[in-house]
Amino acid sequence: ASSTQPIRATLFPGDGIGPEIADSVKQVFNAAEVPIEWEEHFVGDKVDPRTESFLTWESLESVRRNRVGLKGPMATPIGKGHRSLNLTLRKELGLYANVRPCYSLPGYRTRYDDVNLVTIRENTEGEYSGLEHQVVRGVVESLKIITRQASLRVAEYAFHYAKTHGRQKVSAIHKANIMRKTDGLFLKCCREVAEKYPEITYEEVIIDNCCMMLVKNPTLFDVLVMPNLYGDIISDLCAGLIGGLGLTPSCNIGEGGIALAEAVHGSAPDIAGKNLANPTALLLSSVAMLRHLELHDKADQIHDAILKTIADGKYRTVDLGGTSSTTDFTKAVCNNL
Amino acid sequence: ASSTQPIRATLFPGDGIGPEIADSVKQVFNAAEVPIEWEEHFVGDKVDPRTESFLTWESLESVRRNRVGLKGPMATPIGKGHRSLNLTLRKELGLYANVRPCYSLPGYRTRYDDVNLVTIRENTEGEYSGLEHQVVRGVVESLKIITRQASLRVAEYAFHYAKTHGRQKVSAIHKANIMRKTDGLFLKCCREVAEKYPEITYEEVIIDNCCMMLVKNPTLFDVLVMPNLYGDIISDLCAGLIGGLGLTPSCNIGEGGIALAEAVHGSAPDIAGKNLANPTALLLSSVAMLRHLELHDKADQIHDAILKTIADGKYRTVDLGGTSSTTDFTKAVCNNL
Ligand SMILES: CC(C)[C@H](C(=O)O)[C@@H](O)C(=O)O
Ligand SMILES: CC(C)[C@H](C(=O)O)[C@@H](O)C(=O)O
Repeated sequence: ASSTQPIRATLFPGDGIGPEIADSVKQVFNAAEVPIEWEEHFVGDKVDPRTESFLTWESLESVRRNRVGLKGPMATPIGKGHRSLNLTLRKELGLYANVRPCYSLPGYRTRYDDVNLVTIRENTEGEYSGLEHQVVRGVVESLKIITRQASLRVAEYAFHYAKTHGRQKVSAIHKANIMRKTDGLFLKCCREVAEKYPEITYEEVIIDNCCMMLVKNPTLFDVLVMPNLYGDIISDLCAGLIGGLGLTPSCNIGEGGIALAEAVHGSAPDIAGKNLANPTALLLSSVAMLRHLELHDKADQIHDAILKTIADGKYRTVDLGGTSSTTDFTKAVCNNL
Repeated sequence: ASSTQPIRATLFPGDGIGPEIADSVKQVFNAAEVPIEWEEHFVGDKVDPRTESFLTWESLESVRRNRVGLKGPMATPIGKGHRSLNLTLRKELGLYANVRPCYSLPGYRTRYDDVNLVTIRENTEGEYSGLEHQVVRGVVESLKIITRQASLRVAEYAFHYAKTHGRQKVSAIHKANIMRKTDGLFLKCCREVAEKYPEITYEEVIIDNCCMMLVKNPTLFDVLVMPNLYGDIISDLCAGLIGGLGLTPSCNIGEGGIALAEAVHGSAPDIAGKNLANPTALLLSSVAMLRHLELHDKADQIHDAILKTIADGKYRTVDLGGTSSTTDFTKAVCNNL
């Protein structure tokens, strides 16, 4: 037994394949002797009036108390009178920045072999305001809201991230030639923050052009910061370049230093319970969580073991063209620690 | 001299490299003996109060009269008190659908060799409403407007296009899980139209997932129809797959059967006047114009000559890694007619 107290972290295994890939993380953490004690929380089976969603109040309290958590895929039950699970988490925990590093995995070939960038997405407003209404029959409108406060906060986060992670450039992605006021304000805030980081190159790229450049030559980018919807789109595009959402980590940064790492892929109900799921995205997200806790040795050790297992190519799950089970892949990662 | 009257069409050479690539089209049309008589119109040097932009009233009248036109790149002059040239054209001519076919060009290698899809973009509303305002200091909003009328119209166009062009599937691209009312209405309209085309497969794909699938495997798609901004983003992404906007045609369909074909790339002021521009996008757009006029023989002849010239690889402009001038490339296309 170690002399230091274990760190408590909240774990949402989630639905579908969630519990299986969460088990994989637990096994790898055990094997690597990571000093984490999980507080497990499941999505409830009825709407909790205090969260207005199927998430329980206790589970949110757990993240607030621990300030750190890991989350598997959660499928929002269909129906009215409750909020989306993902949006509830973002809102209730003030998760203002979504950080998605994306890099080519040695040994897993796609059309691209040199991707290495990070998407930083404003996570609370923009097109996700939820403000929509019918003006007259057949005419509806949605409001995109951009605030100075949220834009400055995510821009600060992006530049600070770039500086502390040895990155050279921040690109602000926008459509300010059309949305002059909203995206214009976002850019203004990015420029203000950029001034404080003269050592980081700053550029502005229009979103349509950015997508074209990303598919032609992703090495043109380093850190990208952008409003909510563009982040949603571009992070998935980038994931596609290196093989898909099954291989990319994600971490949400919230008010007061909260970090909720998550696998952003779906819950894949078709293969749930069959020991076929690829735990890579959740494992890499757990590494992001460890880095947030500054447990860099453990993070490096687990990260290297995941990459080595994928590079080996001997143990690959079905989604990557292999035949390994979730547990076989997990064992291989443990053996590579 | 042919016995049939030539067809009059409006030509906007545009700015920067525009006049050079427009010359290329004129030469190829001459060589192919296309029965078109051009009415050339240039962007004015002051704001025309009747168009509220640098476009002259006469030039819009010319397109309205001829019902068909071709347009090079136009850079909107910076400053206040006037409208963007592109947006003015879309608005004044009621150009409701933007059609961008995108296919791999044999012999010009990119990471993708089997792209063959068509993006059909709603071109008049959505995030391009121009309705924006400051709510309080530091809080701004933009309105996204979706109407039943415009959604049905573009959906009709997409299904009709699919049917008349031997396409099998229409995918409606959306983010209705977040923008339930606006994108929800768009989808509802697409579903209504889909019912009338039982022979065309219909599917709905969320935009983030669509971008991931496009970069992983573009053959999953055939015809894509979507609101304005998504079309802006996805059409550029698709262009990137096959080499960029210098290689992709575009055609805008307007009320009363107007068609305005256009090169959607920039005006490249850095290489303007140097005989270095690649005329391919404008040439392919001119082919789209000929198809609209049902001059299919001429269209096929020119299309094949362009593709043959690119496939040859002997005459390639600088943007494609070659050393040919605009005029050399153009001559090669003429020789391949
Ligand atoms: C599930 C959905 C609401 C969510 C989003 O749009 O943000 C997802 O695509 C994501 O990127 O986390
Ligand atoms: C120049 C710009 C206003 C335009 C748009 O956003 O529609 C362009 O990107 C396009 O796709 O034609």
